Amino acid sequence: MVATQFASARLQLVAGRRPQQQARRTLSVQCVAAPEQVTTRVQRNKNIGKLQAGYLFPEIARRRRAHQEAKPDAKIISLGIGDTTEPIPPFIVEAMKKASEGLGTLEGYSGYGAEQGKGELREAVCKRLYEKVGRKPSEIFVSDGSKCDIGRLQLMFGADMTVALQDPAYPVYVDSSVIMGMTGGHNGTGFEGVQYMVCRPENDFFPDLSKAPRTDLIFFCSPNNPTGAAATRAQLTSLVEFARANGSIIVYDAAYALYISDDNCPKSIYEIPGAEEVAIETCSFSKYAGFTGVRLGWTVVPEQLRYADGTPLIQDFNRIMTTVFNGASIIAQAGGLACLQDEGWAQMLQLVEFYKENAAILRKTFQEMGFTVYGGENAPYVWVGFPGQKSWDVFAEVLEKCDIVTTPGSGFGPGGEGFVRASAFGHRESVLEAVERFKAVYGNKQ
Amino acid sequence: MVATQFASARLQLVAGRRPQQQARRTLSVQCVAAPEQVTTRVQRNKNIGKLQAGYLFPEIARRRRAHQEAKPDAKIISLGIGDTTEPIPPFIVEAMKKASEGLGTLEGYSGYGAEQGKGELREAVCKRLYEKVGRKPSEIFVSDGSKCDIGRLQLMFGADMTVALQDPAYPVYVDSSVIMGMTGGHNGTGFEGVQYMVCRPENDFFPDLSKAPRTDLIFFCSPNNPTGAAATRAQLTSLVEFARANGSIIVYDAAYALYISDDNCPKSIYEIPGAEEVAIETCSFSKYAGFTGVRLGWTVVPEQLRYADGTPLIQDFNRIMTTVFNGASIIAQAGGLACLQDEGWAQMLQLVEFYKENAAILRKTFQEMGFTVYGGENAPYVWVGFPGQKSWDVFAEVLEKCDIVTTPGSGFGPGGEGFVRASAFGHRESVLEAVERFKAVYGNKQ
Repeated sequence: MVATQFASARLQLVAGRRPQQQARRTLSVQCVAAPEQVTTRVQRNKNIGKLQAGYLFPEIARRRRAHQEAKPDAKIISLGIGDTTEPIPPFIVEAMKKASEGLGTLEGYSGYGAEQGKGELREAVCKRLYEKVGRKPSEIFVSDGSKCDIGRLQLMFGADMTVALQDPAYPVYVDSSVIMGMTGGHNGTGFEGVQYMVCRPENDFFPDLSKAPRTDLIFFCSPNNPTGAAATRAQLTSLVEFARANGSIIVYDAAYALYISDDNCPKSIYEIPGAEEVAIETCSFSKYAGFTGVRLGWTVVPEQLRYADGTPLIQDFNRIMTTVFNGASIIAQAGGLACLQDEGWAQMLQLVEFYKENAAILRKTFQEMGFTVYGGENAPYVWVGFPGQKSWDVFAEVLEKCDIVTTPGSGFGPGGEGFVRASAFGHRESVLEAVERFKAVYGNKQ
Repeated sequence: MVATQFASARLQLVAGRRPQQQARRTLSVQCVAAPEQVTTRVQRNKNIGKLQAGYLFPEIARRRRAHQEAKPDAKIISLGIGDTTEPIPPFIVEAMKKASEGLGTLEGYSGYGAEQGKGELREAVCKRLYEKVGRKPSEIFVSDGSKCDIGRLQLMFGADMTVALQDPAYPVYVDSSVIMGMTGGHNGTGFEGVQYMVCRPENDFFPDLSKAPRTDLIFFCSPNNPTGAAATRAQLTSLVEFARANGSIIVYDAAYALYISDDNCPKSIYEIPGAEEVAIETCSFSKYAGFTGVRLGWTVVPEQLRYADGTPLIQDFNRIMTTVFNGASIIAQAGGLACLQDEGWAQMLQLVEFYKENAAILRKTFQEMGFTVYGGENAPYVWVGFPGQKSWDVFAEVLEKCDIVTTPGSGFGPGGEGFVRASAFGHRESVLEAVERFKAVYGNKQ
């Protein structure tokens, strides 16, 4: 029976609709003793083939490891990936500890929760952040993080979308658009079909919308990662008007909103009238409560947001969340709930304040050394200009001379060329040590 | 400036490449005072429109709520969704508690982990389950669960795939294939383009592969959810040979493997020689350690598994995991690590044993009442036949007469018609109470 199976196998390989070289080769080795090696006849997803290199941060981690291997004694300081370093505040930790303990008891045990998150948590997120801008708990979908939600949003949108995004920006917007098939190939600087809305000092880091073509989707992150620029109320008003005029959907990433100091910069897109008809907002506890490893975020899809045929997006996003997601960890959700209670909220804001102080220290240092510096006031990122230099060269030089990991601006898109991002997430002593190393190497710049 | 914005807006709505009725309608109300209501011009993803009703389990939850509202005093017992009910074993809880506590300390804190999971955990999963079948830690991707991994696998595969799946089967395989665009519309019984491999008593719940057409992907779940049928070594050998002969990729769902009692049924697809060149395996801690709410699973992508062009799937899956995922919660990962240590492993197996006893009780009950019963011996699901009846009618009758929630077989695909699934996940007293209610209503069947 096995024999006939293989016979029919060979037959199918020959008669196969689209026989592959590999498959053919297996035939020629039928006679030898070595086990027949098989390559599937499944075609690779061409969209993934369009992606350039690896995802940015694993690539940076790889170079960091290489540097450490080359200089085993180097005490590398990372101002690279925006990864939190300080302990999670006690009130929040206590809640997660209790939730873990509870899982070991009959009363405290719970299995599957709602895929959209615990009702109590959805209400708390709404009450604390969205009630005043007209959102409802039912519009808030709790998840394991914004990065993951962006992937699920793209799955909901499907391949037939046109996309615009800030340049530079968090790489996940463009990479997930490419994977989903919304773009063409890479032309050396960017992906075909993507509208890169250049955000540089020349335009106050806000795109010239009068020249921007219509797209179905507009990914917009404020405060921006990596530039640290927070859009003003006037700027966001024009963005919302642009989306309303074009019937576009804004995917608004507010992951750093609590880092905003400037009252003139909204903390939610829904502070802009009419945004509820054109905007989705995603946010996360990662950079607020140090939840990068705990994994908890949320995405807001207003009931008023509809596709051209009138279908509410909330209906389709709910279908995606219930079909390929199964809820955030209930332990993380217990932590999130604690973050939103008065005591947890206060402790969380202190943590944000600490990182903002780091940002101020870095910003001041680069300014004093004569660099052109942006960000760091409404965001945990400082955007340092190295005019005329390639970002990856600067990254390599800083790693080599200072043993400090930064993030090359061009890793966030062509518009990031000539800049590096310094992250304010780090222990205070590391940031101060980094400052000393920077001064030693670049101090006499001017 | 705002004025001109709106002026150009109207212009664009008229001149728009694909103006929508909704958009036009907004024009007619320009003059009235009421705020202009906007519907986007973004086309809905037609693939999501193909889906039937909601995802199965939320639909069942909805009917359960309706029944409770109609009969407020009814003490409903759920044998519906396979949701764990027993506390998580102490050794595992302790590890999660410690991990939570640690996050509040400088030494114990950690931010982003590797998107693929902690190296220590990948090694432990491999050592405990896959080393003996030739797999490596680097081939194991830890995640927030198999359901979520299936969504990410589909994103990796892309739309241009042909799909086969067991009928009946866990609905996520077909729903995610539809969402990804691999299928046509629904024709009343199933989705166009999907190869439903009927698994019914007549064929010992294993498809007749001699009649099965080639597809790129074959979703296969053993022990099967919902039928509880575990494929034998001979059956899985023929499945692997079939995939090798056709150059297909098997997505093997082993979420219930530890429930297998029959030594003749493999617990991993990699027990079959050659599977590493044609099969991905996904599994989860959900039904083993009661992690349905904690969220932790893994997917194995062997290095030897390659697309037709020779690209290793592990490379593309790694890109997906690093781009739209950010690692499972480190607290859940600490729990998973405890599950794989000797003490945790022993406690976990006791838990599996407890649910297997529940399954045996349910199986015996239905047999004694004269029903034709399948499953329940190598799986936590009992598959009860109601020949000639519609599954949803039986579901409704059982809910009405017994206040017991089951799962209608047809919810798992056309091949499930005439059956209902009874889940063995439940407190012992609930299962015994359910047994009494079943006997009272169906006891004098023969």
